[in-house]
Amino acid sequence: MADRVRIALDAMGGDHGAAVVLPGADIALSRHPQIEYLLFGDRALIDPVLNGLPNLKARAKVVHTDVAIRMDDKPSQALRYGRWKSSMWLALDAVKKGEADVAVSAGNTGALMAMSRFNLKMIEGIERPAIAALWPTLKGESVVLDVGASIGADEHHLVNLALMGSAMARVLFDVERPTVGLLNIGVEEVKGLEQVREAGRILRAGASPHFEYLGFVEGDDIGKGAADVVVTEGFAGNIALKTAEGTAHQLASYLRAAMNRTWTSRLGYLLSRPAFLMLREKMDPRKSNGGVFLGLNGIVIKSHGGADAEGTAAAIDMGYDMVRYALLAKISQSMARDQADAAAKLAGGAAS
Amino acid sequence: MADRVRIALDAMGGDHGAAVVLPGADIALSRHPQIEYLLFGDRALIDPVLNGLPNLKARAKVVHTDVAIRMDDKPSQALRYGRWKSSMWLALDAVKKGEADVAVSAGNTGALMAMSRFNLKMIEGIERPAIAALWPTLKGESVVLDVGASIGADEHHLVNLALMGSAMARVLFDVERPTVGLLNIGVEEVKGLEQVREAGRILRAGASPHFEYLGFVEGDDIGKGAADVVVTEGFAGNIALKTAEGTAHQLASYLRAAMNRTWTSRLGYLLSRPAFLMLREKMDPRKSNGGVFLGLNGIVIKSHGGADAEGTAAAIDMGYDMVRYALLAKISQSMARDQADAAAKLAGGAAS
Repeated sequence: MADRVRIALDAMGGDHGAAVVLPGADIALSRHPQIEYLLFGDRALIDPVLNGLPNLKARAKVVHTDVAIRMDDKPSQALRYGRWKSSMWLALDAVKKGEADVAVSAGNTGALMAMSRFNLKMIEGIERPAIAALWPTLKGESVVLDVGASIGADEHHLVNLALMGSAMARVLFDVERPTVGLLNIGVEEVKGLEQVREAGRILRAGASPHFEYLGFVEGDDIGKGAADVVVTEGFAGNIALKTAEGTAHQLASYLRAAMNRTWTSRLGYLLSRPAFLMLREKMDPRKSNGGVFLGLNGIVIKSHGGADAEGTAAAIDMGYDMVRYALLAKISQSMARDQADAAAKLAGGAAS
Repeated sequence: MADRVRIALDAMGGDHGAAVVLPGADIALSRHPQIEYLLFGDRALIDPVLNGLPNLKARAKVVHTDVAIRMDDKPSQALRYGRWKSSMWLALDAVKKGEADVAVSAGNTGALMAMSRFNLKMIEGIERPAIAALWPTLKGESVVLDVGASIGADEHHLVNLALMGSAMARVLFDVERPTVGLLNIGVEEVKGLEQVREAGRILRAGASPHFEYLGFVEGDDIGKGAADVVVTEGFAGNIALKTAEGTAHQLASYLRAAMNRTWTSRLGYLLSRPAFLMLREKMDPRKSNGGVFLGLNGIVIKSHGGADAEGTAAAIDMGYDMVRYALLAKISQSMARDQADAAAKLAGGAAS
């Protein structure tokens, strides 16, 4: 295991830039003193914040650039003016050059994905990237992927998602053989997309040593924690994730309204306050901030654009865990083993 | 407006059959005395329950059959043994023959959809059926469709969904020109499925008199009530619906756990009890029970298989509203007007 974890941070990313990213980095550092930072961005914006954070300053090296990717640029635009020189690109480039172990950015998702693919390239055997989210469940957490890196997925991509997701779950949840479910719909007549069914057949037949395939799961199984890893195509996955977030906000808003309605309910609220705080903690989207880009030759964490310092710290924590427990090596090993297994089967089949 | 509403009820449907369906019918009748029921099913199971419900008995005619569709049959199996003679088929057939205004069943969704298509046929100009759900939002309710009748949708089907969904919203929400949003994902790089974008272009260019097209919405916009009607393809729609239900259960479970943790929180809970009851009311999935099958020559309501009497009553209420406010006629009018508009535009284009 690495005795230090070098994190390349896009200090200009997100809605608030350095004013939020750096305090977030400071919080993560207080939890993981092994972190060393490379901070990319405009010195004029970084230095004033950094001077107020002496611990961070002692563990950070600033690399100046005055080019920052805007939140609403199209990926093609961002690549045009930001390649080679933006804070986002330079953070990714540090990973590519081996100067950092992981890149973290709260910037424009599309631009970050495009630059990641362009600069880091895909892992051998994986054609398309995926974004994995940590989803809070009744049992703890699950890895859900893809939540929006690409639209549409054939059976091979779905199988690769199972492989990458289970490597990530192994790293995060410390289980040897995580359970994997394929997201599908339960209506009998339609029985799900052909490629989902085909992926199910491959996963069942494959009996991977890396994960235990459970079969199909439905939307309401995710929150139950029915599987450590839930695999789905990016369009449906993104809609599921956003819908769950929306529902959580909606219910929190109902709860607030209900608690404010009468003086007895307000008094009840005061008495139950520790319980509500626990609940808020449970529901806090900042705790699970950070989408992990998978399939690339390098680890990239996307923090939410609107994240505050705590949220940023959670995203950095996630990057830290990925490095510390060698996510990338585990994915590559899984891929290699899977390909070797497939080759052996093919050879066996040919010989018999 | 009809002075009576004739409801064909599959008394054998759902996990509990007549024991729950009939008490549900009784509750709906107490709210809408204009209802007349045709009850299809096994007299031996129906009569003992019906005898305990004198009001219902006075407004119901029982049609005996001892064939009932099982909850786990495939649609093809169900059609094989249940066509012409099952309680589900007969309820649909009553709508076809004009003996009932709407059919309600809590039976097997796939079988109900297959039988509905087979018996009632599609409306002229609509190729595939849809299931519409009423989704509770911060502003009230929205119509979301398709939530699982069919997988995949080209731009024309999505436009038809907008048309049918807005007719339903007009009926339910009493607004002349409901707002319509197309469900999409926000990640810039991928920008959504081609057919979703194309449907967006058609809807924007069409400027329908029947609804106001708002553009794309994301998963977290549904619960905000961003649009009266949210249009999506059935796979993603089903996953969104189930995920929202799952998240609501999950948060309710967190809340219960939090409130039970200490004696002060339990005391607080007691004081806030009316507020919690209001919250439970808000979150009660039974209130929005009932998927409406759209696109068929007849109105069919699917009640949840596990619904209790209250849930069943909510599904019957929905069927009642659909008939009372002439949903089917409104959809057909919208379709005809739309086709006339398109023909006029074509003629105008050819003339110029």
